[in-house]
Amino acid sequence: MSTSAKVAYEPLNEQTAITLAVKLNLFDRDAELHCREIGDGNLNLVFHVTEPATGHGTIIKQALPYVRVIGESWPLTLERARMESEALQIFARYAPEYVPVVHHTDEQYAITVMEDLSRLKIVRTGFAEGAVYPLLSTHIGEYLARTLYGTSDFALGAEARRELALQFHNPELCKITENFVFTYPLIDDESNAVETGLSELAQELWSDQKLLLEGAKLKQHFMTSAEALLHGDLHTGSIFASDEETKVIDPEFAFYGPIGYDIGLFIANTLLSALARQDDTRDELLRHVTNVWDVFTTRYTQLWQQDNQEYFAGVPGYLEYQLQHILKDTVGYAGSEMMRRVVGLAHAKDIEAITDDAKRLHIKSSAARLARDLIVNRTQYRDAQQIVRALEQADQGVEIGN
Amino acid sequence: MSTSAKVAYEPLNEQTAITLAVKLNLFDRDAELHCREIGDGNLNLVFHVTEPATGHGTIIKQALPYVRVIGESWPLTLERARMESEALQIFARYAPEYVPVVHHTDEQYAITVMEDLSRLKIVRTGFAEGAVYPLLSTHIGEYLARTLYGTSDFALGAEARRELALQFHNPELCKITENFVFTYPLIDDESNAVETGLSELAQELWSDQKLLLEGAKLKQHFMTSAEALLHGDLHTGSIFASDEETKVIDPEFAFYGPIGYDIGLFIANTLLSALARQDDTRDELLRHVTNVWDVFTTRYTQLWQQDNQEYFAGVPGYLEYQLQHILKDTVGYAGSEMMRRVVGLAHAKDIEAITDDAKRLHIKSSAARLARDLIVNRTQYRDAQQIVRALEQADQGVEIGN
Repeated sequence: MSTSAKVAYEPLNEQTAITLAVKLNLFDRDAELHCREIGDGNLNLVFHVTEPATGHGTIIKQALPYVRVIGESWPLTLERARMESEALQIFARYAPEYVPVVHHTDEQYAITVMEDLSRLKIVRTGFAEGAVYPLLSTHIGEYLARTLYGTSDFALGAEARRELALQFHNPELCKITENFVFTYPLIDDESNAVETGLSELAQELWSDQKLLLEGAKLKQHFMTSAEALLHGDLHTGSIFASDEETKVIDPEFAFYGPIGYDIGLFIANTLLSALARQDDTRDELLRHVTNVWDVFTTRYTQLWQQDNQEYFAGVPGYLEYQLQHILKDTVGYAGSEMMRRVVGLAHAKDIEAITDDAKRLHIKSSAARLARDLIVNRTQYRDAQQIVRALEQADQGVEIGN
Repeated sequence: MSTSAKVAYEPLNEQTAITLAVKLNLFDRDAELHCREIGDGNLNLVFHVTEPATGHGTIIKQALPYVRVIGESWPLTLERARMESEALQIFARYAPEYVPVVHHTDEQYAITVMEDLSRLKIVRTGFAEGAVYPLLSTHIGEYLARTLYGTSDFALGAEARRELALQFHNPELCKITENFVFTYPLIDDESNAVETGLSELAQELWSDQKLLLEGAKLKQHFMTSAEALLHGDLHTGSIFASDEETKVIDPEFAFYGPIGYDIGLFIANTLLSALARQDDTRDELLRHVTNVWDVFTTRYTQLWQQDNQEYFAGVPGYLEYQLQHILKDTVGYAGSEMMRRVVGLAHAKDIEAITDDAKRLHIKSSAARLARDLIVNRTQYRDAQQIVRALEQADQGVEIGN
């Protein structure tokens, strides 16, 4: 299948994207349309087709057969376009308010045509510009609880869950995560981007045997634990928002993995934006960290109690055990994600944008120290408030401890 | 595929089994052949075709489209015949000495034609007759280390391992285990077979909240943890042996699951035979329990150190962590298996064969108490010697504790 896709595949350009949008009847045949390629990701072309006269628009996303940031040297099959469109459609079953509508998919051309979200802004960008998105963590907590609980053994039963997991066999994109999140940032790999002022700290981290051991365990758990259908890349660059609305996009890394991974990524990237934030709105970002966990656990608990296929669901302590397990993973994966955003290949833009060297280095080393603690001491965390306290301790340069 | 298989499928009889063997050129066209259906399992027909003149023989195994022990009421697809023949061939890559040779497979008729092992005896039967099979645990320890390490992320890398796991999507047979090992024996289910003298103890177990909670965790870990390609049903009825040779058969339950499950099943069934054994050869069976763990860990360690795809394999403490994790699962799953052999549907024949009621009930309640401790206190076990001590304590009616 991937062979035949390669034969016929051709990348769109702004003109052919318009032609496709018209062919799909998304606009009138004689409408005057504009098109712009707006992809800032690494793996895809993204065309924004608009009709200025009406203000209507649509998004046409096309997977590229290689990772763009690395050039054509890292080939990728186009299978991930199917992953993305199918994952969007599954997540829409559980949390339709929080995912874009899919209008059309074309497996051969690796195309997904979907709702225009240009009324919203990428949260990472908004955060860098000072926005706080007051409803963000409530929406994301809801989205996480509903999609992760909904695709777990508890909601589906193991048989149906195993069936669904087959559909999201995604070894290529899992491998990217396994390398760029779980391996390279913890070792002196050439792909890492460590700024000069941070190289001593990086060397220290790379020779920290306890960090390596706990990082290895998190990686192994990521690889073997099929708890729920994850988004798989839920950083703040995968979320569109306004003050009222939130939409989660780009689930091409979707696969069955540990529930805490999705939650951890959201928390990690929010923590990074909070560290970059110098004014008194930092607390509003930190509130997202505690609130996303609170909303997630409240909703997860409701869903667990309402509709559960597991005979033992009502056994005293079982739900509490599950939530504790998810928290431990959430904390650890938040640490893995923060670490790679400081010493790995792909950094946090809001931190990189800080031009004051001393300030930027202080933030990065605080982030790295926090990341280490989250990874190494993840079983010691009892709630999300403790994560926020640890961030404050790291930022103040005092020892992280509770 | 399962539809078309149903259309053409027909069960063999002793005559058509002979016809097939001849057609496959396993015997001369004019050989005088005998055939006997010897299946004592629940899911299959097993034909033993022999040529008395030469002593040659072959085994023709055919899956039935239902579970025989329950009657035709529990339908099963024939897919498991493919699972079995493909698993046998994969295990043969890693441990050819310990699996039968596959001569031929036919997916449509759900048939696997394989090596005649009639020179050997089913270990469960041999154990009941007083045999000790001195090399059994050394062979099984080797088999377990090589097949389980060999199919793990560490040996294959995650990408190839994920690919192989797809091939062993086996939800139907996993469901049987999830129900008959992990659920029904822990609750008052009508499928359980509890003899009258044991009903008080069974009621006590079924209302033991700690047991239910830990049993639920083991079940969930079984369902979600894709560590290695398991045999999936490695009790002593799945092993043929003599004093010199050991062959593991019947991997139709094969799937990617937690490594400790296979080891735990072997240990549980050996413990049950040891409890049933009244003479001083009991210690020789108990030695199998400690030896299988010793051989497994020694060999697993060697393989880990020789050939490992995981970058972090050499981090101090990582191998030790893995072995500790496997031990914890092994102990817990040994408990789950012992429990179902005492209060669940399928019992241990050597215990059932004891006609002295007091003796049989003593053994069963010792087994149940040991099983409970293995499940509930699995994280407290530091080695397999401790399992043997716990058995002795249970048998002597003293509190299990270390």
